[in-house]
Amino acid sequence: MTDFSQTRAAFDLPEGVIYLDGNSLGPLPRSAAERVARMMTQEWGRLLIRGWNEAGWYVQPRRVGDRIAPLIGAEPGSVVMGDTLSVKVFQALSAAVEMRPERRVILSDSGNFPSDLYVAQELVAALDRGADRGVDRGVDREPDLGLELRIVAPEEVEAAIDDSIAVTLLTEVDYRTGRLHDMAALTARAHAAGALTIWDLAHSAGALPVRLAEAGADFAVGCTYKYLNGGPGAPAFIYVDPRHADAARPALAGWMGHAAPFAFDPHWTPASGIERMRVGTPPVLALTALEAALDIWEGVSLDALRQESIRLSEAFIAAVAARLPGLPLASPREPERRGSQVSFRHPDAYAIVQALIARGVIGDFRAPDIMRFGFTPLYLTLVETEKAADLLADVVLTEAWNQPEYRIRAQVT
Amino acid sequence: MTDFSQTRAAFDLPEGVIYLDGNSLGPLPRSAAERVARMMTQEWGRLLIRGWNEAGWYVQPRRVGDRIAPLIGAEPGSVVMGDTLSVKVFQALSAAVEMRPERRVILSDSGNFPSDLYVAQELVAALDRGADRGVDRGVDREPDLGLELRIVAPEEVEAAIDDSIAVTLLTEVDYRTGRLHDMAALTARAHAAGALTIWDLAHSAGALPVRLAEAGADFAVGCTYKYLNGGPGAPAFIYVDPRHADAARPALAGWMGHAAPFAFDPHWTPASGIERMRVGTPPVLALTALEAALDIWEGVSLDALRQESIRLSEAFIAAVAARLPGLPLASPREPERRGSQVSFRHPDAYAIVQALIARGVIGDFRAPDIMRFGFTPLYLTLVETEKAADLLADVVLTEAWNQPEYRIRAQVT
Repeated sequence: MTDFSQTRAAFDLPEGVIYLDGNSLGPLPRSAAERVARMMTQEWGRLLIRGWNEAGWYVQPRRVGDRIAPLIGAEPGSVVMGDTLSVKVFQALSAAVEMRPERRVILSDSGNFPSDLYVAQELVAALDRGADRGVDRGVDREPDLGLELRIVAPEEVEAAIDDSIAVTLLTEVDYRTGRLHDMAALTARAHAAGALTIWDLAHSAGALPVRLAEAGADFAVGCTYKYLNGGPGAPAFIYVDPRHADAARPALAGWMGHAAPFAFDPHWTPASGIERMRVGTPPVLALTALEAALDIWEGVSLDALRQESIRLSEAFIAAVAARLPGLPLASPREPERRGSQVSFRHPDAYAIVQALIARGVIGDFRAPDIMRFGFTPLYLTLVETEKAADLLADVVLTEAWNQPEYRIRAQVT
Repeated sequence: MTDFSQTRAAFDLPEGVIYLDGNSLGPLPRSAAERVARMMTQEWGRLLIRGWNEAGWYVQPRRVGDRIAPLIGAEPGSVVMGDTLSVKVFQALSAAVEMRPERRVILSDSGNFPSDLYVAQELVAALDRGADRGVDRGVDREPDLGLELRIVAPEEVEAAIDDSIAVTLLTEVDYRTGRLHDMAALTARAHAAGALTIWDLAHSAGALPVRLAEAGADFAVGCTYKYLNGGPGAPAFIYVDPRHADAARPALAGWMGHAAPFAFDPHWTPASGIERMRVGTPPVLALTALEAALDIWEGVSLDALRQESIRLSEAFIAAVAARLPGLPLASPREPERRGSQVSFRHPDAYAIVQALIARGVIGDFRAPDIMRFGFTPLYLTLVETEKAADLLADVVLTEAWNQPEYRIRAQVT
């Protein structure tokens, strides 16, 4: 039985704040600062360069990956940490398109996080310009033979998967609406069409049970600073289905992914398995903070977490609807079609979120009109949830948001 | 006047250790652990998501870049932090080859760090396969029209620069021998031939005066965990000559490099200037440790540092030569042709380095036969340098290294 009062006690939460933004940046685990300080003074300070072996820094990306694996339904040894989510998307996507050389379409949707689309767009553009470079300039290349990034509406993804698709690049949970894709069904559909799948788990890992191996997902990537509470800029993870791991060839490769990094061979020979997705020197401070955060997950049942997340989000929706029946819900109404967030639309969403923050309820604004609230049972209670709904209703009904100080445009949100 | 006893006092150095491996991992600055703990508890813990604006995390990659800039002779606003050195090499190289579409050769040398070569090799391979994908399969592509990575000996680089070269990819200081390339001369030669230059400053930044702007270098990249003492896995930096910054188009692009990251536009529009080289969420913990390390550089004259580095390395060479006249120096004998390290060759280099470490002198082994010693005036004294030379001679002359415990093959060195 998961005791969420115990997990809550493991976080250092500021007084007077109801935090509904753990889907953007998780809070500080109580043990993290001391853990990082100890790593710095005892390992870096005392061992110096010897820390790579003696403190296990070198194997930390795999060790931490093995702790992420059970949270995303992955096999041990199939996950490795490093870099940022965008870099890992780049590696997964470049490897996947290589594995389907006869196909030309990368399929994504308009609910995907823009950075994933940017990575795809610029990879396609670079490969396309690479093709121009390669062609005998006396012969025109057919313009439709290169790769194409095709973006459809989220509800059109399933129908758009056909045998032209090399790979689908989808974020399981929509960062604005919380809409949850059916990973198992879409993966099966992609495989039936001969396509590969890349799943971005930014809003899934630590938010709900993920079953990568069961779904047969080919690649997955995610970040650890949201529901996994690793801290600002915490490193990303990448998963490669063990069936593919020895075939995957990322366009971005570095020495830590070499079969023998310390042989200093001038030629890159990929390590076997997931190790080849390592690039440069791992971020030891950040991985150490993340290790402290992952301790909190020991003994937490993901099914119990999901149940509690639904209880909180349903209570929030009901409480908001009772007082603001006209406020449009931007999230699916059925909890099983949502991740662990609830979004509403309002033309003054930005100012309302600012006014709420001033009252101690931290949510998020997403352009153009989304108010986004994350539900994180590890540290969020039902009492807080209901109070947040009340404060939201107070702000909207009294037009408390309609003050100049709340209407300044966000520089960063 | 730079007072190196004061900079030495700013480091937490373990008792009984003479550290000649600051060119692999710099030691712990005394203020770093407390600085990171304060960032974690006061900023992350109290501000949560608001830290991105209120604690300046969002602008940290540029703020820290502006502190690196004077150490490498770069203009303010021309350097940004993030990712790892290999990722930054990838960005610089992909942008550079785009800027020379009519040329096909990337020129590097066998003294370059292997990871740079791996990045180049796999980028070339990916673009080449992209070209195969793009070509009408009825027409064979000329195999010699794609990009080529050409690797010559370091002393042959200058002669190899001709008008086939798109870009040179060179590490200024050889990681094994310490041989220093003439950045100004090679950059001038490259420009005369119409080529661009990428300088890897891994063993230069903080080791000697670097004059990027004066040399007219086009791109530069470097890491911060060696002579800059940022800690294990500290983030990399990238420099783009302001003349090119708005033209450079890296194949790897993310939302933090977008002109308007928080508009969540589905299309990537590069930010102006160096900002476009940002990719994902910046590593705030690591950047905070690095900021503490950079404080130590305030008031340090790079010319005084260079002078002291030469004094230490010359004393080391002289002391070793006096007792081990037959030991081959792997580094250039003239100090102005070296970086801030001295290397010797010995068939039992690995075992000798292990035996030295057991005696408190930490140096580095680099395959197959290099013993490498870094000289870091910020915290290394002449007395330590001479003692280290003596201990090296003792170990070699008494064959103290010839014990089974020192002969085990390195797993990680």
